[in-house]
Amino acid sequence: MGERTAALSARAPAGAIQVTFLGTSAGIPTETRGLPSLALSLGGEILLFDCGEGTQIQFRRAGLRPGRLAHILISHLHGDHVLGLPGLLMSLQLGGRTQPLGLHGPPGIGDFIRATLERLAAHVAFPLEITEHSGPERVVHGSGYEVECRPLEHRILCLGYALQEAPRPGALDVAVARRLGVADGPLMGRLKAGESVTTADGRVVTAREVLRPPVPGRRIAYCTDTRPCPACLALARDADLLIHESTFTSDRAEDAQQKGHSTAAEAAAIAAQAGARRLALTHISPRYQDPEAQRADAGCLFPATVVAADLQRLTVPKRVA
Amino acid sequence: MGERTAALSARAPAGAIQVTFLGTSAGIPTETRGLPSLALSLGGEILLFDCGEGTQIQFRRAGLRPGRLAHILISHLHGDHVLGLPGLLMSLQLGGRTQPLGLHGPPGIGDFIRATLERLAAHVAFPLEITEHSGPERVVHGSGYEVECRPLEHRILCLGYALQEAPRPGALDVAVARRLGVADGPLMGRLKAGESVTTADGRVVTAREVLRPPVPGRRIAYCTDTRPCPACLALARDADLLIHESTFTSDRAEDAQQKGHSTAAEAAAIAAQAGARRLALTHISPRYQDPEAQRADAGCLFPATVVAADLQRLTVPKRVA
Repeated sequence: MGERTAALSARAPAGAIQVTFLGTSAGIPTETRGLPSLALSLGGEILLFDCGEGTQIQFRRAGLRPGRLAHILISHLHGDHVLGLPGLLMSLQLGGRTQPLGLHGPPGIGDFIRATLERLAAHVAFPLEITEHSGPERVVHGSGYEVECRPLEHRILCLGYALQEAPRPGALDVAVARRLGVADGPLMGRLKAGESVTTADGRVVTAREVLRPPVPGRRIAYCTDTRPCPACLALARDADLLIHESTFTSDRAEDAQQKGHSTAAEAAAIAAQAGARRLALTHISPRYQDPEAQRADAGCLFPATVVAADLQRLTVPKRVA
Repeated sequence: MGERTAALSARAPAGAIQVTFLGTSAGIPTETRGLPSLALSLGGEILLFDCGEGTQIQFRRAGLRPGRLAHILISHLHGDHVLGLPGLLMSLQLGGRTQPLGLHGPPGIGDFIRATLERLAAHVAFPLEITEHSGPERVVHGSGYEVECRPLEHRILCLGYALQEAPRPGALDVAVARRLGVADGPLMGRLKAGESVTTADGRVVTAREVLRPPVPGRRIAYCTDTRPCPACLALARDADLLIHESTFTSDRAEDAQQKGHSTAAEAAAIAAQAGARRLALTHISPRYQDPEAQRADAGCLFPATVVAADLQRLTVPKRVA
């Protein structure tokens, strides 16, 4: 455990988006899989998706810093996805937090938190900004990214989320700029920043003429708990990483259908149809002790599949032009 | 971890009372200490004292069997002591439990559970027998033991508990019985069972004449969160094991007083005054990374002190005549 924790505590490379799986079980925790939660780190902020019992403990084990937590996004009001929330908020309070925290989820999330805190004589003094959504809509407008939500297909209202990073401006094509008469130096910098400049011979050169096309930002989709559905497809469209529930394997497709869940193969089909680049399966039923079952079920349809483990970290590299 | 878990899963010796610490931190979990909970195993039953967030996970890690859980006893309605309760109940339900479960605690515990389950559309189908207490009173009348509660001194109503095992009948003094004319064989067995018998020459011999004095049962007291107080002393009186909170050490005696907690030395003084045989300190503030601080603070007053660690198991041996 020591080595793993040490590795996890290492700083993320600059510009990296990292996803840390805090709990990957479904319904009931096992000895190796905790209840659903996932931390997404980008630009010095952490977004937490779902908050099952034990999340605050896993958060610490993963070496994540509570002070960086900016938003918590809850999929739905089933116990395994939210019962870590009151304890996490109370610990943030005990830890002296003063900065705001966004809490987003389906209608009822605010009432759940208020009712729990009230009964336990607990008080959260930092600004807890609760917003309730039924989707499709924008949930967070962050610095350099946005998060949208869409209602999935589960037994109760359940929100899927997609984080979309803003596009990066294209690089300056210096050769083209020179050809248009722009001198090396400050003018090049202004073009790079998107401005228009006037050359020595009085010609106006716009940034559009000399910048390469913008590089699309990264997209990460989070779809649990759900049947495969059009909302999953929309959230996962062209995603760098699709995190999708995989409660069952294909031999239990009927269970998945009846209970409003997905099989690994169904998750893989969504990833393939959506043109996702990578698929991480989570929300694994405690019946599966060997991740190979899930991987095999998904793998033939979508080879770039990983079956997530607790405290596993995935890095989503920047897109290149 | 593998070895430790294997050792923990080993069966308890027959007649043993075992105490398994599931969480030993105070307020906030650390990387090594979870939130308060403790399992007491006796005669095939498990009694759970407090149920902080993550208890169900630790319960599994300790190799304890959910089917044996008979009663849950909650000290008070602060989040760190109860936030594992809804998830534990939901997991028992998902696991198909049908047998009754006793849930005991201060007034408000029932409302907390009902409010939480209702908001999460969760239903517990097995009989959950909730009783609320303000103490002093008997809480559980089990098979061969009783549990009493008493109100401690904390910021809100907080119950301490003591489990008292029934005395064992004294052994048969065969020499005395023979001297009184009892023949070896079935008559001896009846005397042992507490009956009177008639000897061959018509004399009535009562069990009282031939049995040694009863052997007192074991006593285990659980006092957290609290200032040292007369109720602690009463619960700990002649205890085989006193489990007492030790949030601070003596250099922070003022903090302890202000926050309604105890220092290790105060817990040790209670153990000494009460004539307890052993003291286990728990509810350790996250500020203490080395248990030696607590041990040293308690040890000079009460040498038979252990600073509990998560997943540590203590066996309370039978008393001898």
